[in-house]
Amino acid sequence: MSLQTPSPSLEHPLPAGMRDLLPEEAAARRDLSRTMLDRFALHGFVLVTPPVFEFADVLERGLGTLDPADVLRFVEPESGEVAALRPDMTPQIARMVATRLRDRPLPCRLGYEGTVMRRLSGRARKQRQIPQVGVELVGVAGPEGDLELIGLMVDALRAAGLEEFTIDLGDAGVVRALLAETLSPEHRGALTKAVARKDDAEIAEAGAAAGAPYVDALRALPRLSGGREALVEGVAFLARTPASAAASRLLALFDAASAAGLGPHLSADLGEVRGFSYYTGTVFHAYAPGTGDALASGGRYDELLARFGLDAQAAGFAVDLDRAREALQAAHVGRERAARVVVVGGPRDPRLAAFRRGGTAAVAIGDRAAALKWARSWGFSHVLDGSSWVDPQTGAPAAPPAAGDTTTRGGTTQGGTTGERGHS
Amino acid sequence: MSLQTPSPSLEHPLPAGMRDLLPEEAAARRDLSRTMLDRFALHGFVLVTPPVFEFADVLERGLGTLDPADVLRFVEPESGEVAALRPDMTPQIARMVATRLRDRPLPCRLGYEGTVMRRLSGRARKQRQIPQVGVELVGVAGPEGDLELIGLMVDALRAAGLEEFTIDLGDAGVVRALLAETLSPEHRGALTKAVARKDDAEIAEAGAAAGAPYVDALRALPRLSGGREALVEGVAFLARTPASAAASRLLALFDAASAAGLGPHLSADLGEVRGFSYYTGTVFHAYAPGTGDALASGGRYDELLARFGLDAQAAGFAVDLDRAREALQAAHVGRERAARVVVVGGPRDPRLAAFRRGGTAAVAIGDRAAALKWARSWGFSHVLDGSSWVDPQTGAPAAPPAAGDTTTRGGTTQGGTTGERGHS
Repeated sequence: MSLQTPSPSLEHPLPAGMRDLLPEEAAARRDLSRTMLDRFALHGFVLVTPPVFEFADVLERGLGTLDPADVLRFVEPESGEVAALRPDMTPQIARMVATRLRDRPLPCRLGYEGTVMRRLSGRARKQRQIPQVGVELVGVAGPEGDLELIGLMVDALRAAGLEEFTIDLGDAGVVRALLAETLSPEHRGALTKAVARKDDAEIAEAGAAAGAPYVDALRALPRLSGGREALVEGVAFLARTPASAAASRLLALFDAASAAGLGPHLSADLGEVRGFSYYTGTVFHAYAPGTGDALASGGRYDELLARFGLDAQAAGFAVDLDRAREALQAAHVGRERAARVVVVGGPRDPRLAAFRRGGTAAVAIGDRAAALKWARSWGFSHVLDGSSWVDPQTGAPAAPPAAGDTTTRGGTTQGGTTGERGHS
Repeated sequence: MSLQTPSPSLEHPLPAGMRDLLPEEAAARRDLSRTMLDRFALHGFVLVTPPVFEFADVLERGLGTLDPADVLRFVEPESGEVAALRPDMTPQIARMVATRLRDRPLPCRLGYEGTVMRRLSGRARKQRQIPQVGVELVGVAGPEGDLELIGLMVDALRAAGLEEFTIDLGDAGVVRALLAETLSPEHRGALTKAVARKDDAEIAEAGAAAGAPYVDALRALPRLSGGREALVEGVAFLARTPASAAASRLLALFDAASAAGLGPHLSADLGEVRGFSYYTGTVFHAYAPGTGDALASGGRYDELLARFGLDAQAAGFAVDLDRAREALQAAHVGRERAARVVVVGGPRDPRLAAFRRGGTAAVAIGDRAAALKWARSWGFSHVLDGSSWVDPQTGAPAAPPAAGDTTTRGGTTQGGTTGERGHS
């Protein structure tokens, strides 16, 4: 049976993974992005803006977390060369630091905002557009640099209104040290994948197939995660393996972060292998109720800048704004929204200019019923009819918006805004 | 002769038309974008965010100003269909209005921000990444809607700090009415191009070749531009042609805009044909010293939404943020920049947190000489060494930043920031 009238949203389909942000969602994402960029700026990180696409070989020089198959490529028409929509902004920032910013003194603290595009080959070929904000810190070695970034991530998430979240600390050096260099890339890959799955039987099998040393240590990693006790146990367990130094380094970072007041948010995972080929030391991911994926991810990649010709230590993190908004919705964190006024009147009504001069958004609609309906539907908080203030949700008399007034709404919770509810 | 050491900026070339924004430039563009979006919001325009790319046939359904050859296309890997990096956000907004927003009451006032990608086939195949902010107003007919948008464009440019600029008004209906429908598309195209070039001999020649009526009127158009007198002269001259109604409509809009206080910024051009096939009525472009191209462009396109299945009148405009910044630089409009502090000390210096709590950006650098050099290079305004404030530009004692202090700098003028000068 074919549909006679296709639904409006299907009449003009969007490519997989692309979506529109309607007003409530667009404003919420914009506010979140501004809040976080402003926090980054307070900590001295200055904004840079790389281009939307680049030649694929430049981007891929800095890849590591991503399979090259995850990158959306196309032939750039002017040059005939292969270009790619960036799957990650870090290689772009690394290129900028190594070229146009290389004469400025380190440390280099950079912030950025933008959308990255990833095809997710592991997940039934779904691509996704990911809006991000992030920072890169170049020229400060771990653990001092790591601690600065973890503190900044906590500060930015708190500034956004999130209170309940966990920063899970790991160190890419642990698993790396346990995978002997004599192993073939295939065997290393199979073992890494097994550790990522925390699958004991698979680790044992892949270890035996590879003839790998330290299989017992690799098999222990999946349970060496949790709080400080698990970490202490892991350090002891790994003391006689090549992973001893990396494990001790992770414990020291955990303790330094606790001393800096971040303890309530911390967990640790000695078996962390996400972004394994990219990161060289500390890795950290933020998790919160309401979203399965990490809402922010970062780590140390001391070898990345060398690929662009600059010998410098570097670390950074990126926040996935969509995941962060999911977490905020799950935590029922509403946005503070300024009053917005609909004046019952004509477009030359002098009160419009007066409201705008005072910093309040204002529009005019010719009659009261239409003004109330319009205000409900578009999320405007006040209607002014003659000299009377009206609440558009109830139609009842209302108090005027005070100067600088903001109204709190559960505007970003699942299921739409107050305005949308009034509209349905 | 080959270069032995390629310059760092050439080591990793960018595709044609792509560029990096370094800190000073990125911050200036971000500030400009925020200022304009905030003005749009005050006038009741709410933000929406369409995706970065879409299927080409959806985007091209709404094209008109652009040759399809100007669009950067690629095969979308998930579907095998042709997708395109948007050359213009208006068709995307039109799609949203006609689908996911179609149940909300008109008028629909939407704002947007994003980067569009254009190949410029007319100009030696140069493509360009254009950062834009813009608005769309759906459901308010001209001239009321046109006047609202022209007023908003003036307000946004003034809010950005620009004082000397011209809004050039035209009407797509004038030339359209003079090109008889009996003419072939080729002849219409040749005549339109000749009018666009204001080339009298070419208009005469193309008109004769087409056997077109109203060639005298078309030849008169190039001189019918300037102030109100030229417009009045044009209305009289065109009174007995099919362009009479459109010319009178333009004069009425000019007078209404003058009455609304916009007179000092207005000019008119009866021969305006830019975006000819897209616009159905009023067109307007903002010009300012320092940039040859329009820094903002808009107009009425009452037929666009019908292509997406919604019968509604619409108009809008977009600001080219790069061109607007060129105009601001030419006008020597500096940005107000908040004080940013480098503390001579360690990363756990408690003064860092105190500054940040007060809304002032702060970082720590271990010794005074390095702190001064770093502050100069990265554009930080104050250095605090012990209890002494130091001006990083001069090394002399300085006053502390007052609470909420902002320092005015000629930061966006050609030739770099104060910081960059100190660094060279």
